[in-house]
This record gives sequence, structure tokens and C-alpha cells, in this order.
Amino acid sequence: MKNIIIASTSTIHGGSYLEYLLDELKVHFKNCKTILFIPYARPSGITHDEYTAKAAQAFAKINIAVKGIHEFEDAEAAIKDAEGIFTGGGNTFLLVTQLYQNKIMSTLSTTIKNGTPYLGTSAGSVICGLSMQNTNDMPIIYPPSFQTLAVIPFNINAHYLDPDTNSKHMGETRETRLKEFHSFNNIPVLGLREGSWLEVRDNTITIKGGLQARLFIANETALEIEDNTDISDLK
Amino acid sequence: MKNIIIASTSTIHGGSYLEYLLDELKVHFKNCKTILFIPYARPSGITHDEYTAKAAQAFAKINIAVKGIHEFEDAEAAIKDAEGIFTGGGNTFLLVTQLYQNKIMSTLSTTIKNGTPYLGTSAGSVICGLSMQNTNDMPIIYPPSFQTLAVIPFNINAHYLDPDTNSKHMGETRETRLKEFHSFNNIPVLGLREGSWLEVRDNTITIKGGLQARLFIANETALEIEDNTDISDLK
Repeated sequence: MKNIIIASTSTIHGGSYLEYLLDELKVHFKNCKTILFIPYARPSGITHDEYTAKAAQAFAKINIAVKGIHEFEDAEAAIKDAEGIFTGGGNTFLLVTQLYQNKIMSTLSTTIKNGTPYLGTSAGSVICGLSMQNTNDMPIIYPPSFQTLAVIPFNINAHYLDPDTNSKHMGETRETRLKEFHSFNNIPVLGLREGSWLEVRDNTITIKGGLQARLFIANETALEIEDNTDISDLK
Repeated sequence: MKNIIIASTSTIHGGSYLEYLLDELKVHFKNCKTILFIPYARPSGITHDEYTAKAAQAFAKINIAVKGIHEFEDAEAAIKDAEGIFTGGGNTFLLVTQLYQNKIMSTLSTTIKNGTPYLGTSAGSVICGLSMQNTNDMPIIYPPSFQTLAVIPFNINAHYLDPDTNSKHMGETRETRLKEFHSFNNIPVLGLREGSWLEVRDNTITIKGGLQARLFIANETALEIEDNTDISDLK
């Protein structure tokens, strides 16, 4: 029953917010007049109202209204009643903390598993995995747990970035960080480059967007996976 | 009584491990025959033994022996008895988790405050601040707390990196991440570029290494601070 889009980024270089995804979203949310927006990740610290207005501006182009979850008295009921749900990017530590504090992590997971169309971008995509442990974000707040929605059976690294071979910077590359994760964890991690997304329909998971994705599995060499590959067996 | 070197990185581009700091370390650890190494951060997942051997190889050049804390039955006693202490870089989440699990966070803090010479590089420097919340690392393990040694009254962002103005990547810049931190926290953060370090002697804190550092204070514009500036009043 699942109906999910898990996008690496909301915005690609040179485009406006959600622009590259709008054709896809028109189909994805075709039965929705209004979608529920979860603005908890607050990119650059903007307010829930400001962030919701930004999402509303993009969805207006495909004639869908947007209402922020913070506008509802009962966040759990808002999720259960939603025609469609979108969680935007920002800081994953903040997003996860807020989902727990508002006691909706589990309801959101169940609702998505039951088929309510869901869109995640960036942090909103990272939370679709088993844990938020492959976020690139700074730990600006201490969440009660790193466990997330688990609507897919692996983890996401959003904004996946190939190593810059000309760099003189000694900080770890993304690949080094993901390998460190696999020194202590066995969960597969899919690195989604900006412009890529996963389409989840029932139990079929497909890579979309015209780019390769990079798959990291513990104790194995990282693999490039072609666009349009069915990765439903990954776990 | 403090006697601390807080270095952004262990290694600068083109150099070997600790090479650029050796002249400084010769003076810093002048009264030490042996120093205690804390290898918990395990860069790239290497073992405690492998990491300790790497540190020992560098310190051998200035005739100082190195013993890993994992070689002692009683980690707390090892810290109290140490002539000098060095915590290496790697993953800050792992380092902090291990310091708590081995019940030595508080003893290490007290020991450093009482004057035992300490060297931190990268993650080993981040823990000198009030919290580890300005690490660049991936949350590969869930620590019991983000609070750290607090031997200086502000936080460190190691491997500080200026924005790449040519990049088409849409992930957040370091400065954006630090500003997000200040949407929720008031602790000042010093961004130390690779090659920079802080020298802490008693209560005097000075920027060293020939580079500017970048200072982030909540609700203020970020500031460049010159090399050799006394920043003892920062808090």
C-alpha cells in the first residue's frame, strides 16, 4: 500500500524550490486537494510559518494547498486525517527531536505504511530509513533516539557527494564517513545524489531521476546502481 | 593551571601525522617520558592498537613513548596517573560514547583542569568545548549525552571550511550549519581552520598556527580573528 517519494534534495542547482519534482508530484498527490506539511527541520532556523509558506508557494503551481502541522491542535489527528504528507529538509536532529516530542513518530510511520502519499526531501527523506545515522547534519539538539520511521528497510544518505579529488581539506569524505558507520552497524545505506529520488509503490522501490545512486553495504565495496533499478530486495 | 593544545587537525595536506605540530609538542610535553593516548575515536574504524601505533610512531620522533588507554585495566587510574594525555581524531560520536561508557569524562576534565598537559586533535579537540554539538561527524553511534569536557568555555568546530563559491552542491555550508546551531543555542563557536590550534596556559587562550580563526556568536555576524589573538574573555 506504500506510496512514497524519497528525494535527495528539495532544490537542484539553478532551480526553484521543488521545481524539478513538480511533474512527479502532480501524479503522486493527484487525489489531494490539501497536503499536510511538517516544517520541523527548519532550514537556517526559519519559522514554521515561513517554511510552510515556502512549501505552499511551490505546491500552488500544481493547485494543491498546504497546511503546516503546527497549525493543528492535535498533531497526531492531523497526520491520520491527511490526504497527503510532505516533510521538508533542514536539520535532521531537530526534525527527529520534534517528531518524538510531539509523539508522532510512530503514527507517521503507520500512516505512511497504510498508503497515505508521502514526500520527503533531504532530512524528510533521511527519516524514512531505519535510523537517522547517515545524516550530514550538525547535532544542534539531542534527540531522544536516532531511530526513525523505517518505511524502507535501509538508510538514506541525502545530498550524496563524490570525493573532490582536488581538495586539500583533510576532513573525511562522505564515503569515509559511511565506511565508519559500517564499522559499527550492518544497515545498508543508499547515497542519493542531488536530483535523484526513490519511488516506493507498495513494496517496489525504484531509483529515479536519471542519476546513479551509490550503495554502501557493510564489509563490501561500494557499488554504483543505475537509474530505474528496482532495489526492493535491499535490506 | 591548564596546559592544553587544541588543534583543528592532526595532519595538514602534504604532511605526515602530527608533523606540523612536533616542535610545539616537544615543548608542551617536555616533562613527559610517556603520554597516555585515547584512541576511542577510531578514524576509518581502525583498531585501538593500530591507532596507538600510529600516534607512537609520530611521538617517537621527539623521544616520547605512547601507551593506549585500552592497555590499562583501570582507565580512570590511567588518566589520573598520566604525565601527559593525547586524544586523537576520528568520529566524535564514538569518542564521546566511549568516554561515558568507560566513566572517564569527568575524571579527564578534572585532570586537564588540574594541569596535566593535554593535546587534542580534531574530535579530541571538539570534546574540549562545552558540548560536541559542532562536530562535522556522522552520528554512527548514540552517545548518552552531547556534553563534553568543558575545559574551555565555548565550542570548537574543527576542520573549519570556508564556503566553496563555485560549488553546485545544495547541501548546507559550514557557516549555515553553525548559524542553525545558534537558532537554538547561545554557546560561542570557534571555527579552527586546518593548521590552527588554541594554546591554553592557565586561563589564557591564544590562537596559534599562522591562520585566522572564524568566530560565531549567536545573533551576531561571524568574525575573523587574527592569529596570536588572546581570546581568554570569550564565553
